[in-house]
Amino acid sequence: MHILVTNDDGVTARGLLALAQAMRKIPGSQVSILAPHRNWSITGHVKTFDRPLRVWEVRLADGTRALASDGAPSDCVSLALLGLLEQPVDLVVSGINPNPNVGHDVTYSGTVTAAMEAVIAGVPAIAVSLDRRGQDEAQVDYGPAAEIARQISVWVLEHGLPPEVLLNVNVPALPAEALGRVRLTRLGKRIYRDQLVRRLDPAGRPYYWYGGEEPTGVPEEGTDIGALARGEVSVTPLQMDMTAQGAWHKLAGLEKLGQA
Amino acid sequence: MHILVTNDDGVTARGLLALAQAMRKIPGSQVSILAPHRNWSITGHVKTFDRPLRVWEVRLADGTRALASDGAPSDCVSLALLGLLEQPVDLVVSGINPNPNVGHDVTYSGTVTAAMEAVIAGVPAIAVSLDRRGQDEAQVDYGPAAEIARQISVWVLEHGLPPEVLLNVNVPALPAEALGRVRLTRLGKRIYRDQLVRRLDPAGRPYYWYGGEEPTGVPEEGTDIGALARGEVSVTPLQMDMTAQGAWHKLAGLEKLGQA
Repeated sequence: MHILVTNDDGVTARGLLALAQAMRKIPGSQVSILAPHRNWSITGHVKTFDRPLRVWEVRLADGTRALASDGAPSDCVSLALLGLLEQPVDLVVSGINPNPNVGHDVTYSGTVTAAMEAVIAGVPAIAVSLDRRGQDEAQVDYGPAAEIARQISVWVLEHGLPPEVLLNVNVPALPAEALGRVRLTRLGKRIYRDQLVRRLDPAGRPYYWYGGEEPTGVPEEGTDIGALARGEVSVTPLQMDMTAQGAWHKLAGLEKLGQA
Repeated sequence: MHILVTNDDGVTARGLLALAQAMRKIPGSQVSILAPHRNWSITGHVKTFDRPLRVWEVRLADGTRALASDGAPSDCVSLALLGLLEQPVDLVVSGINPNPNVGHDVTYSGTVTAAMEAVIAGVPAIAVSLDRRGQDEAQVDYGPAAEIARQISVWVLEHGLPPEVLLNVNVPALPAEALGRVRLTRLGKRIYRDQLVRRLDPAGRPYYWYGGEEPTGVPEEGTDIGALARGEVSVTPLQMDMTAQGAWHKLAGLEKLGQA
């Protein structure tokens, strides 16, 4: 079983190493790593057509051989699946992101959009993120989340996933013995608290930052946000078909337009 | 009614000008334009936190005052809605993209992700794309698509849209009298035909392009791709909630993991 590990934080991120090490424990697995050389958080689903992409070999902190690219996370997956890796890929695992990807985060997230790219190419995919709730990233233990990712990967390799569906996994940063159960969830309601911060450069011309506070969310039962609030592992199946079938009856009047 | 017009092709694109001109025809409308200064096609849903954003004034080909930014399409929408535009925005219209955005294109598309950003902020949004089927972009007539966009915008301003839903509109590049009816559709099956093209730089080091052919699609009845194939205007309601509710029963076994 050939598993591709990628992420959106850059190939040297601690979360990627923990994930790759966990994948290597799967009996019969062969693990390849192809990930961006820099951080691509909150960059969405990219396919880089306007410039060529480079790929080069790097060594991770434990000596593992990996490939880095100047492409986006979804580019790394696409390059791998289009033949940069000679052997066909059976599973793509993306992460471990050092922040949760819940609710509306999913279309922004490089971690999740890397998994989307795989699913579009017909390869099962799992995105894994950690809810570290203020813990220092340099100190946080990715081990329990990596172990959960390993178990979910084994399950997916055995059972497969429905077509066009990926798994979005969020794990609280708790010791293994304190982790709650695995819950199938739906996307919850994210509350963004961005504010526009206007500053002036030394020449007196304005520039703008997104400021404000970290997003929060509604910890409703049955949602990813609710599961994390209870210390549980959230597994949300996401489908690529975004058609709002339930909205059609409210929109029927649109079909009468254009008939002058 | 305050309408924000944006796009992913850059503020000077012909499609944006045609769209803005059509929006200005809506009685009582005030139209603002804030769009990227360069092309951001296939760049996904971006929020630029790692650098500040600039915004400056430009004039379009007809003398219209517009704002340009070095941010992504979704940044332009976010900047506008976070207060860069003083007056609250009632509708965001994105386009007119000079190529269709159908099937799996939607999560990649700057045109569509700009509309997603609006919907997340609670503002109704419409993405508009043209299927010009090999016609030269410099020659193609955006007028009929802009007129359809105007009619749909009037409808949306009057009736609203369900929460968390945007309209993804694709219009064949046909003369107004040859355009088929407006169809509510679901996302169809896109067939990507990318191939990896490996080249060597003058120093003999490899670099990679996405090559291959333009994507095609399955023109199934009821889908966006099917409607375009019949010369019809496709309106696909898209929902931001990507939860694959229908997949849950197949994934129930995942809830037993982690219980050693």
